Amino acid sequence: MIALVGCGTVGGGTALLLTRDIKFLKEKTGLELGLKYVVDINFDNARAIGIPEELYETDLNKVLNDPEVTIVIELVGGLTFAKDVVSKSLSAGKNVITANKALLATFGEELFGLARKNSVSIGFEASCAGGIPIVKAITEGMAVNRIDALYGIVNGTCNYILTQMIDQGMSYNKALKGAQAQGLAEADPTLDVNGMDSAHKITIMSSLCFGYNCELDRVSVTGIENIDIYDVKLGTEMGYTIKLLAIGETYGDKVSLRVQPSFISNQHPLAKISGPFNGVSLYGHAVGHTMYYGRGAGDLPTASAIGADIISVASGAQKILFDNYKYWPDLTQKPSYMDQSEVESAYYLRLNVEDHIGVTATVTKILAENSISISGISQKEARFDEKEQKSIPLVILTHKTAKGNIDAAIKKLKKEQMISKKIVSIPVIAQKSENIK
Amino acid sequence: MIALVGCGTVGGGTALLLTRDIKFLKEKTGLELGLKYVVDINFDNARAIGIPEELYETDLNKVLNDPEVTIVIELVGGLTFAKDVVSKSLSAGKNVITANKALLATFGEELFGLARKNSVSIGFEASCAGGIPIVKAITEGMAVNRIDALYGIVNGTCNYILTQMIDQGMSYNKALKGAQAQGLAEADPTLDVNGMDSAHKITIMSSLCFGYNCELDRVSVTGIENIDIYDVKLGTEMGYTIKLLAIGETYGDKVSLRVQPSFISNQHPLAKISGPFNGVSLYGHAVGHTMYYGRGAGDLPTASAIGADIISVASGAQKILFDNYKYWPDLTQKPSYMDQSEVESAYYLRLNVEDHIGVTATVTKILAENSISISGISQKEARFDEKEQKSIPLVILTHKTAKGNIDAAIKKLKKEQMISKKIVSIPVIAQKSENIK
Repeated sequence: MIALVGCGTVGGGTALLLTRDIKFLKEKTGLELGLKYVVDINFDNARAIGIPEELYETDLNKVLNDPEVTIVIELVGGLTFAKDVVSKSLSAGKNVITANKALLATFGEELFGLARKNSVSIGFEASCAGGIPIVKAITEGMAVNRIDALYGIVNGTCNYILTQMIDQGMSYNKALKGAQAQGLAEADPTLDVNGMDSAHKITIMSSLCFGYNCELDRVSVTGIENIDIYDVKLGTEMGYTIKLLAIGETYGDKVSLRVQPSFISNQHPLAKISGPFNGVSLYGHAVGHTMYYGRGAGDLPTASAIGADIISVASGAQKILFDNYKYWPDLTQKPSYMDQSEVESAYYLRLNVEDHIGVTATVTKILAENSISISGISQKEARFDEKEQKSIPLVILTHKTAKGNIDAAIKKLKKEQMISKKIVSIPVIAQKSENIK
Repeated sequence: MIALVGCGTVGGGTALLLTRDIKFLKEKTGLELGLKYVVDINFDNARAIGIPEELYETDLNKVLNDPEVTIVIELVGGLTFAKDVVSKSLSAGKNVITANKALLATFGEELFGLARKNSVSIGFEASCAGGIPIVKAITEGMAVNRIDALYGIVNGTCNYILTQMIDQGMSYNKALKGAQAQGLAEADPTLDVNGMDSAHKITIMSSLCFGYNCELDRVSVTGIENIDIYDVKLGTEMGYTIKLLAIGETYGDKVSLRVQPSFISNQHPLAKISGPFNGVSLYGHAVGHTMYYGRGAGDLPTASAIGADIISVASGAQKILFDNYKYWPDLTQKPSYMDQSEVESAYYLRLNVEDHIGVTATVTKILAENSISISGISQKEARFDEKEQKSIPLVILTHKTAKGNIDAAIKKLKKEQMISKKIVSIPVIAQKSENIK
């Protein structure tokens, strides 16, 4: 029997599948999936969607002590009570299913180890990229591949905001307010827009892809809060779409993990993943490029991923995978990391410069001194809304160069009197080439 | 131990994974995957890629009688010897993995039943959409969903040819020759370009999605052989991309299966699936729209899908799925089919008409009499290459209407003296709306 802990949006959707759809699920999957408890302290949402009252329970211990319960679904969120629920459930010999990316990115090694010690398993399909069955794709669909890169749009809130900026020409603040009004952003959207939610997901997925116990605090994270609509528009003019990309990549035996607003070509398969949708590209040595697309959030879409886990756990397939697959974070070593300054990329740079003779020469000289080769340069009209009245925007596209070179050049540029202190730099990410061999 | 029957392109790729990569596979999946036999009558390819001679075997019976062999991988292709290999292997109590879409689309019910009778399973991830783990996505990732539609670009040869026509303005014949030169089309490309290969795949996938034993001979199939570059170009001008779509869709308790060249909007997520790549969109009642993208063919990409099956079968997970899941074709009823004439779609029509007063009135009157509402009409300049010198092209976009109406109108139009007998009609497929509930 199943106990569900936390009956908010996703919990409600999951409870709905396990009650309203229970006959259909039996007919399709051949499994009896009895929901025995819905544990929460407030049942307003459960009541609103019609979950039967007899399932309501406020005492977690009753669940933990009930030998009939073999699966606990943790949908509490956060790192405190949620960790308690998961640890206690595993210790009580119950399989756990969770959508909690922060928890697994932070305590993955510990919790997977605890599951193994107690001969149970953890299902976490819903923790990464919502309804997309990406965990199954990585662990099962790509099983025979050496995966060397993972490019994802894995935060629907950010993607919705950026899509509004691109399509409607809205400022970041206006697009954020719109997302909040639509229920696509939390009242406190910090974890989404600052990139941390994406960092949680790239940590979990990279561990599964690369066979290393990847660490959350080694992800280089930049959010979307400072994206200027002016750069979004200039990017669009040049054939680029701005996306918050979560990237996990191996360079030989080193790993790079980063979350960063990035320009990608409009022809890039990830460019068309718009609004609240998520997309993840995986690159395997046998299969080449595969991509997975779907809703990154929402009650029923996320419940769909939880449901896939329920089926896997209840059938025993998840346990087999958990026992056989060797890329779970409790079984792997921590990786060596690529120095972030060594990660190479093309760049979009925007500087505000005084409209003087020699300023372009100064800029290009500093770039050259830092081994940065220019692929395009364009001096724009002064912006109406620019506070620094005398300055004009200078946009530079570079060839591929190390991030360290860009950082050093920006530091140098900021020292020049004719150049404003605010310098925008956005990586321009080419479509990764396949390396099938 | 594993026996591989048929060491051509895909067989070679699979043998390579099971020999060259065997240490990596053990480390990653925890499984011993010993390849014991490579069965063929010719070992030139096996030798060329370095598969050890001691595995070569010409006698299938030796494999069937070897109790150590628990998995037979059939990569022979076709419906005769391949069926023999699969039937005999299943009857000998061996699990079968196959990439043979024609075989499963034609004899699925029989072969799945035979597997069940012998308490073994069939893995066929590689039979649909090459390296994309779409069978796993349908049966496991979407397990709790009632899937009501499946839109796929599932033939890489056709997609490559159409992409060349779109991007390079090539004629169909020239693009086909290019595809053959690139090794992306067979010397005899009939099964690809006439849509039958796509029909095989949509039959297999629809059975898994809808829970009916869908029948190959109920797929309405149109190939790409008659696509005129002129229509491709006009479509591009109007913001449409031409794709060979394989569609499985439910309408209440009826099913429609069809393969047809279709115009889709450039904004449609399937529009960006170019060249030899495949893509499949699934629509579930909980998850909404999910899409899967990857290489549809090739030695190692296809071997990647076969490898996923090997892992599933060897671990026992495939057997669990095979025993539990109820949507295998031997367990389900044949569906009722939607009458093809009732299937609704918008249409692109191109007629050649004489440049006379009243001709447009005649055309629009006939359309109106057949309940076809026009959303756009455009009279083009006469084509230089048009043989009928006096005629000019008339392009009409219709609102959604039943195929029966279009067919009736075309029949009527052809009777008009001022209208050429060759009338092009191409469905214009809107992005299906999600029906999350």
